[in-house]
Amino acid sequence: MIAVLKSGTTAAQKENLIKWLSAQGLSVHVSEGEYKTVLGLIGDTSKIDMDLLSGLEIVDQVTRISEPFKSANRKFHPEDTVISVTDTAKIGGSNFGLIAGPCSVESEEQICTVAKAVKAAGATFLRGGAFKPRTSPYDFQGMGAEGIELLLKAKAATGLPIVTEIMSISHIDLFADVDVIQVGARNMQNFELLKQLGRCNKPILLKRGMSATLKEMLMSAEYIMAGGNEQVILCERGIRSFDPYTRNVLDLAAVPLLKELSHLPVVVDPSHATGAARLVRPMALAAAAAGANGLMIEVHNDPMHALCDGAQSVTPDQFAEIAKAVATVRTAL
Amino acid sequence: MIAVLKSGTTAAQKENLIKWLSAQGLSVHVSEGEYKTVLGLIGDTSKIDMDLLSGLEIVDQVTRISEPFKSANRKFHPEDTVISVTDTAKIGGSNFGLIAGPCSVESEEQICTVAKAVKAAGATFLRGGAFKPRTSPYDFQGMGAEGIELLLKAKAATGLPIVTEIMSISHIDLFADVDVIQVGARNMQNFELLKQLGRCNKPILLKRGMSATLKEMLMSAEYIMAGGNEQVILCERGIRSFDPYTRNVLDLAAVPLLKELSHLPVVVDPSHATGAARLVRPMALAAAAAGANGLMIEVHNDPMHALCDGAQSVTPDQFAEIAKAVATVRTAL
Amino acid sequence: MIAVLKSGTTAAQKENLIKWLSAQGLSVHVSEGEYKTVLGLIGDTSKIDMDLLSGLEIVDQVTRISEPFKSANRKFHPEDTVISVTDTAKIGGSNFGLIAGPCSVESEEQICTVAKAVKAAGATFLRGGAFKPRTSPYDFQGMGAEGIELLLKAKAATGLPIVTEIMSISHIDLFADVDVIQVGARNMQNFELLKQLGRCNKPILLKRGMSATLKEMLMSAEYIMAGGNEQVILCERGIRSFDPYTRNVLDLAAVPLLKELSHLPVVVDPSHATGAARLVRPMALAAAAAGANGLMIEVHNDPMHALCDGAQSVTPDQFAEIAKAVATVRTAL
Amino acid sequence: MIAVLKSGTTAAQKENLIKWLSAQGLSVHVSEGEYKTVLGLIGDTSKIDMDLLSGLEIVDQVTRISEPFKSANRKFHPEDTVISVTDTAKIGGSNFGLIAGPCSVESEEQICTVAKAVKAAGATFLRGGAFKPRTSPYDFQGMGAEGIELLLKAKAATGLPIVTEIMSISHIDLFADVDVIQVGARNMQNFELLKQLGRCNKPILLKRGMSATLKEMLMSAEYIMAGGNEQVILCERGIRSFDPYTRNVLDLAAVPLLKELSHLPVVVDPSHATGAARLVRPMALAAAAAGANGLMIEVHNDPMHALCDGAQSVTPDQFAEIAKAVATVRTAL
Repeated sequence: MIAVLKSGTTAAQKENLIKWLSAQGLSVHVSEGEYKTVLGLIGDTSKIDMDLLSGLEIVDQVTRISEPFKSANRKFHPEDTVISVTDTAKIGGSNFGLIAGPCSVESEEQICTVAKAVKAAGATFLRGGAFKPRTSPYDFQGMGAEGIELLLKAKAATGLPIVTEIMSISHIDLFADVDVIQVGARNMQNFELLKQLGRCNKPILLKRGMSATLKEMLMSAEYIMAGGNEQVILCERGIRSFDPYTRNVLDLAAVPLLKELSHLPVVVDPSHATGAARLVRPMALAAAAAGANGLMIEVHNDPMHALCDGAQSVTPDQFAEIAKAVATVRTAL
Repeated sequence: MIAVLKSGTTAAQKENLIKWLSAQGLSVHVSEGEYKTVLGLIGDTSKIDMDLLSGLEIVDQVTRISEPFKSANRKFHPEDTVISVTDTAKIGGSNFGLIAGPCSVESEEQICTVAKAVKAAGATFLRGGAFKPRTSPYDFQGMGAEGIELLLKAKAATGLPIVTEIMSISHIDLFADVDVIQVGARNMQNFELLKQLGRCNKPILLKRGMSATLKEMLMSAEYIMAGGNEQVILCERGIRSFDPYTRNVLDLAAVPLLKELSHLPVVVDPSHATGAARLVRPMALAAAAAGANGLMIEVHNDPMHALCDGAQSVTPDQFAEIAKAVATVRTAL
Repeated sequence: MIAVLKSGTTAAQKENLIKWLSAQGLSVHVSEGEYKTVLGLIGDTSKIDMDLLSGLEIVDQVTRISEPFKSANRKFHPEDTVISVTDTAKIGGSNFGLIAGPCSVESEEQICTVAKAVKAAGATFLRGGAFKPRTSPYDFQGMGAEGIELLLKAKAATGLPIVTEIMSISHIDLFADVDVIQVGARNMQNFELLKQLGRCNKPILLKRGMSATLKEMLMSAEYIMAGGNEQVILCERGIRSFDPYTRNVLDLAAVPLLKELSHLPVVVDPSHATGAARLVRPMALAAAAAGANGLMIEVHNDPMHALCDGAQSVTPDQFAEIAKAVATVRTAL
Repeated sequence: MIAVLKSGTTAAQKENLIKWLSAQGLSVHVSEGEYKTVLGLIGDTSKIDMDLLSGLEIVDQVTRISEPFKSANRKFHPEDTVISVTDTAKIGGSNFGLIAGPCSVESEEQICTVAKAVKAAGATFLRGGAFKPRTSPYDFQGMGAEGIELLLKAKAATGLPIVTEIMSISHIDLFADVDVIQVGARNMQNFELLKQLGRCNKPILLKRGMSATLKEMLMSAEYIMAGGNEQVILCERGIRSFDPYTRNVLDLAAVPLLKELSHLPVVVDPSHATGAARLVRPMALAAAAAGANGLMIEVHNDPMHALCDGAQSVTPDQFAEIAKAVATVRTAL
């Protein structure tokens, strides 16, 4: 860590700061410039509060040299992590995960119909929301526990492992038979939930918060991994921006960047990112071309009657065509 | 609600959509233009999924005419809500709430010293973090239950009601004697937490999420109010933007806008918004001038040794000066 | 255009507004709801100032139904526009334009070497900056007129048409032999420049401003087209966002969206968008997969010694590999 | 400047980079850490391309220690700059500039009426647009040269110095009698225009670009100052953000921050920032409380009939009330 002191800092202030830094177990290397003094902090700086340091009156700026994340850091774990749920359902390394299904579970017939259709089209995981985060308390909130039951029936019928979102640690027992637990964008920094998931032995699909930086996302993965659960899948799903024309901006450069910083697999959700079914295909292809380890796509047999997010769902036929085109791109590259 | 259909929509598609809308209890008023058809939807549109509708292939755009929030809406509740905790600790209407204290509770001595100092300077509430949301799992996470005990001691010593943050519904019992429960920015859309707080009989201070729109913030207030708890204080604390120079951008226009849209009181947190102690004074004055119903300011007796967020804390002396200047501005206006 | 009036609007205010709208040649269709009144404005609303209308005290919101751009609008021009410079250098429809070259022209040897290399690798246009927009007045500002001379020599040597940026209308005469004139992101709303370019008979490559919405970008294209020059190429080059980790966020959904809204060709610049050579390949492939009509890639024979933006330049060898991979993706799809 | 090299950098790569840096006149101080090497660059780093350096494959990050702006830097010019146009029209230091007038000049009667009204209310400058930057080519573009004539008549009638916007260097001769030339947000990085204004001997009011960082704004001021014209007034006018509810977000922390970084005066434009007349008062008061050196407020005698931006204009009566309240706040502080 490097701290640059403001010009005008007195010798006493400088000494005071160095004493304080040393008391935290760091050795401090001082180099005096014409206008400014630069302190090099050597040792375990992961416990230093960068905001505190940079906010001190005599400090001009602070730069972290080593990343604050460790378990998720590719530097200490050069090989790709592969999340392996079944022999055919793997994500990471050269394994591409194709996660598909409706936004919400609505009925046994609906979820089983969609499950069979997406399996036939090549999906390797079934997704479906049982607990739904909705902006309005007056909107449909999901079927809850019953929704999970129906997902398990669809799993029994198709063999597809299931991915579904958790919204509260008080529901954790209901997720005992779920294969992959999803943490939604709004809960990416619900740290108590992350800590709890760090203690369970299941893969976690962690969605990027609406305005989370890549480093913040990796720090949230770190919360889970620090608890002992190293099976984390990162999911880019669009970030908030200024143009009202799409719901979010899909940040595809996040794919190569996250793979560079971390060994964890990275999947992309083009459905939530764009909020529009007709944009799912081009963005799914783009994600595959950018090197994503998987895709998460909303599919509904009757998008117009879907209880939520029908706007961004594709039909099973459209999904089959997208899956084929994605495979073509991946084979070509 | 108004839906504009794309040019090229067939009569059959149009009829199909109208049938579907009617099935949801709405009457539909059709007006045909040269290129486009406009549907006016009359009735209770709060249950219509705007995203679904706008995502349909034949729909060009959808405009909501009535706001989706009801309990928080000034239209149905023209008078200012006043949150009244004690005779002297009130927020809303003409009552200005001055909430001050350290980012984290660190020891009995620390919290009592700061509490006495801020009370002497005119604070009407004591704040202090017991459970702390930190980006890194390796950073100090707060004293937890013990922190709340110490806040209660400081309350006993000074008579100041206390404000502290909740991070998980599993901690709710620990908040039995807390006067105002804070929901942090990262949990503004932790809907399960909001629902639970809707069932408790205490004022809730709801912070704006880092990239939450004003309407989303009001919908989160609505989650609490829909559960029966109408005592919500809104808190602007800065939003995320592109300039790395400050931590966040303090959106002060949110103050008059929220007060126009809603009857709930609006306070401003200049400490978290800027992340820099030296910016707290000008932004506190600006917030008061913009019409805020209160301020939330971090004060620490020894900012340099604060366990978290010392960078943005002012000293008790600085706070006393700020409180005085704020009072001067409020008197002048 | 639809205007929703606030509840509480008096009959006199309403009449006053309707009179004013009628005076501007519009017919007004009034529909009264329970809380609000909705005005439908019929006629040529392109001259109505939407900001004025929505800012009136009695107006709650205004929605434009017809887009404010006409010449650029696909609705009135369903076929793809193809910009054709030579038999082999075309952009639009099924023609893919591969624009490559250094950020800045530095010497005859440099530009000719790069030109030959990129031609051999399949480039169809040579790019190179003669006038350079730099954040700092102390940075290299480009070779100016001499740079254009050198580009023309490289064109003579290779047959590649040239693309270079204009920064001021006072330089227009120097661009007489340039094939495609580029308008940079910082000048996307330099309306006087756009008007001037609307009067010249050359293709214009218009880069998206750093925080321009898609509609604003199309309105800037409209400035050029309104002057009579319909040869506009739109270029997505990344938008500003909150994560300091990359220079910009490449908004690839802009590709299908712009192609839906407009008949103009859309190219993508992955070099400026990411600011990092190692991200050019994945983003170039993603852009091709998303349906872009072309790419604009910075290539330098010696990126480390490049006078500007070397960080984002790839070498000729890397470019050749990227061009091949892009062709593979395009063939596959 | 400090450059951190990636772990895995070879000795040869390191030496190569050091040789290249030395060739640019810098001395390089190397410090080896456990995982990374840190290079301290000493000398005139203002000519080093930070983007180039940080984009090199072996470089992890680069930190600038000295700001890249010099003439605008408070470090080298500790006293406040005061822009003095007449004995009563000064901005900077303890002089508060109150700039008021219509968005566009529309007629002699209009501009003179407004000029007299704002002068009576305490305005020290008259503003009015002759050349107008409009998103649409079909919107009113201003009266041009005639508009400047009318402004000069209003100046003759009231004695108020005039502020008006320039959009192209080809119009510079028309501005010979203008007192303060405004550069609009869209032209903040029109570098050719800035260079030209650096050669004229008149105060320049420089508006912040919609997504410009404070450092970029200061670098644009530097373009003007590097040409010899040191009379620059900085103007915060709102930045682009994600909430469609207001046109822009007024970043008031920019006021104390710019005044800390630079000696130039800082004024605030609450009219463009919010786009709504009813928000002008609270934001004007907030700006004054935050320490602004002046305000720029749109005033129109008949906002509903204003040819542009009427939505954000206040009436002369409202302006008089705002001016009085601003004076009260300033006196109180």
